[in-house]
Amino acid sequence: MYKINENYQKLPGSYLFSTIAKKVSAYTQANPGKGIIRLGIGDVTLPLAPAIIAAMHKAVDEMADAATFRGYAPDLGYGFLRDAVASQDYQSRGCGISPDEIFVSDGAKSDSANIQEIFSQDNRIAVCDPVYPVYVDSNVMSGRTGAYDAASGTWSDVIYMPCTMENGFVPEFPKETPDIIYLCLPNNPTGTAITKGQLQGWVDYANKVGAVIIYDGAYEAYISEENVAHSIYECEGAKACAIELKSFSKNAGFTGVRLGYTVVPKELKCGGVSLHGMWARRHGTKFNGAPYIVQRAGEAAYSPEGKAQLKEQVAYYMRNASAIKSGLQEAGYTVFGGVNAPYLWLKTPGKMTSWEFFDYLLEQANVVGTPGSGFGPSGEGYFRLTAFGSYENTQKALERIKGL
Amino acid sequence: MYKINENYQKLPGSYLFSTIAKKVSAYTQANPGKGIIRLGIGDVTLPLAPAIIAAMHKAVDEMADAATFRGYAPDLGYGFLRDAVASQDYQSRGCGISPDEIFVSDGAKSDSANIQEIFSQDNRIAVCDPVYPVYVDSNVMSGRTGAYDAASGTWSDVIYMPCTMENGFVPEFPKETPDIIYLCLPNNPTGTAITKGQLQGWVDYANKVGAVIIYDGAYEAYISEENVAHSIYECEGAKACAIELKSFSKNAGFTGVRLGYTVVPKELKCGGVSLHGMWARRHGTKFNGAPYIVQRAGEAAYSPEGKAQLKEQVAYYMRNASAIKSGLQEAGYTVFGGVNAPYLWLKTPGKMTSWEFFDYLLEQANVVGTPGSGFGPSGEGYFRLTAFGSYENTQKALERIKGL
Repeated sequence: MYKINENYQKLPGSYLFSTIAKKVSAYTQANPGKGIIRLGIGDVTLPLAPAIIAAMHKAVDEMADAATFRGYAPDLGYGFLRDAVASQDYQSRGCGISPDEIFVSDGAKSDSANIQEIFSQDNRIAVCDPVYPVYVDSNVMSGRTGAYDAASGTWSDVIYMPCTMENGFVPEFPKETPDIIYLCLPNNPTGTAITKGQLQGWVDYANKVGAVIIYDGAYEAYISEENVAHSIYECEGAKACAIELKSFSKNAGFTGVRLGYTVVPKELKCGGVSLHGMWARRHGTKFNGAPYIVQRAGEAAYSPEGKAQLKEQVAYYMRNASAIKSGLQEAGYTVFGGVNAPYLWLKTPGKMTSWEFFDYLLEQANVVGTPGSGFGPSGEGYFRLTAFGSYENTQKALERIKGL
Repeated sequence: MYKINENYQKLPGSYLFSTIAKKVSAYTQANPGKGIIRLGIGDVTLPLAPAIIAAMHKAVDEMADAATFRGYAPDLGYGFLRDAVASQDYQSRGCGISPDEIFVSDGAKSDSANIQEIFSQDNRIAVCDPVYPVYVDSNVMSGRTGAYDAASGTWSDVIYMPCTMENGFVPEFPKETPDIIYLCLPNNPTGTAITKGQLQGWVDYANKVGAVIIYDGAYEAYISEENVAHSIYECEGAKACAIELKSFSKNAGFTGVRLGYTVVPKELKCGGVSLHGMWARRHGTKFNGAPYIVQRAGEAAYSPEGKAQLKEQVAYYMRNASAIKSGLQEAGYTVFGGVNAPYLWLKTPGKMTSWEFFDYLLEQANVVGTPGSGFGPSGEGYFRLTAFGSYENTQKALERIKGL
């Protein structure tokens, strides 16, 4: 008789955002006609930029003509997109990343879940706490996290780096030595960024202890402060210890379009084995490229018109971020983030738990946020709101919260 | 120091089609101006059907307007597509598969590589030999295949089911009991189909020995004979033992569009654990949905216009298949397949190995095919040609081969 992967049975509950979707759906079914405002999952609301729409129409037309039709894409992505990424996201910032170190994918969620596959099962991971759930869950599924302790909400073999008010939400080097360090900066869910100097400290630390950093830069476009690095490869020595994941979801509104990329530098080696070669092999065997139309849409994000339009979109969301921050502060909340990231991280009022505050906000204000505890035990007592709503809805949500 | 997944190091050489691409690229660089005809990788050449193009333009326009913009898709696929699949691919054939048993993905390659993840590492897989390389390679990467023996080209823990001229390319029940059985029917690479009665035999066998069947139906649209099943769920008892993978690549020309789906029936359980729930969890954690535009394109494949147009495309390719078959037979080759599948499987002439014939055909006729040995040891001495070229190129390739 065949057997299942028992690691799946260890996962407590369902994926965070699936749970939230079910709760919201149950509430709206029981209370039809309530105007729910969703500031929970980090989903964008602005339509795709005109330059991107034009590129997609053009690509669709190419697919309608045998002379310009495109079948299977090159395994690792089209040259036109890898070139644009390498030159505009890296070379323009002095990071010597070449196009063939860019691996185009269907999004950073897939990449951040899949990247653990190329590492040994007995590697020890370190994550910020709170953290994007995919890092830990994907390691649970592959049997790398040990036993779950329901009381503390932690895994025996995971090294947690608490990020709380006490340390300004900045992770500290862990006491135990990790093999794989996940860093998401600017951070989801806390909205925190660290300085380039602090990031250099992490690169030096990884090189010293022989760890690899999985650097999730999904929110890079939201950086507003000068001393924050846009890529980990701005740091000396990062190419020897870091893989960088990037998304088009938050800078170009591609949550429903699906595009991302991973950078694996050729000099990143483990005992002489090239991680670049391993990731290429995984792509070649388990993935068949992002759609041509979507890769053309991605390319348009780098055109002069595209860049100008996307800059406006980011500014639109950041206006929301700053409105939420000041609005909630006026209402007496303690609020973090929202400066270099589209996320606001607030302390729940009184002694409310994160899920209590979720229910309270859903039922009393019809506003959906994300309970901080869903991101890890140190998220308990916090709550995430996103700046990705429309300006009007964001204002309306604030009015409702202020009126509680 | 972190460590890598050592299983990757066991993989001999690169992914088959990457190797071919490199060989062809080297040849064309050394011999510019040669008109290479590609009948190797199973990539389509006809442009997307008008009904699909229209659906994509419409969906792109929806993404340009905040009122109709779509962000994150539902984890498992949009209802409009799951409904169309369930009703037209299953319920219309008397298979009681419901929409929520359909998991929409970015293609059958990803699904066929990822599906092994939900099973225990010590399960034993059985594959046809020759076989689509992804089944074995994805199991190598997860450490399920034992040691590689370079001399025989086999893995110690894989059960091979030879499919050769001697058994009409129809796999026989293996002597050792497998846990997971991969079946691709109609078959890639041999082009063979089996009768519904024979398939029922496999379902009965799996239920008897407690195995699960991964049924790859990527070439279902090419079935021309009456007594061949279009889905494994046409067989009694299949919902208790089979997962079915389907692709839009070969019936709708989506190789560069990327769409597929997996059926995991709710009654498929292992010791009380629902595989449906496990696959849902994998999708929720490691995937973020196929693009909205692509799912609308998929829906259009089920419209009356779409279906009529795709039927013509399949007929076009099958005209190629039949021309290749008769042309090669005239030239003295022994040829199989091409009746229920877009693949022709021929014996290499004389004592040529598959790779020798590959080089011979590339250099002498400038035609690219796929060496049978690339699909497994029993593929040695065979060669695959595909019917996916244009009619003109297919004719030209035949002329060249006949002229050798």
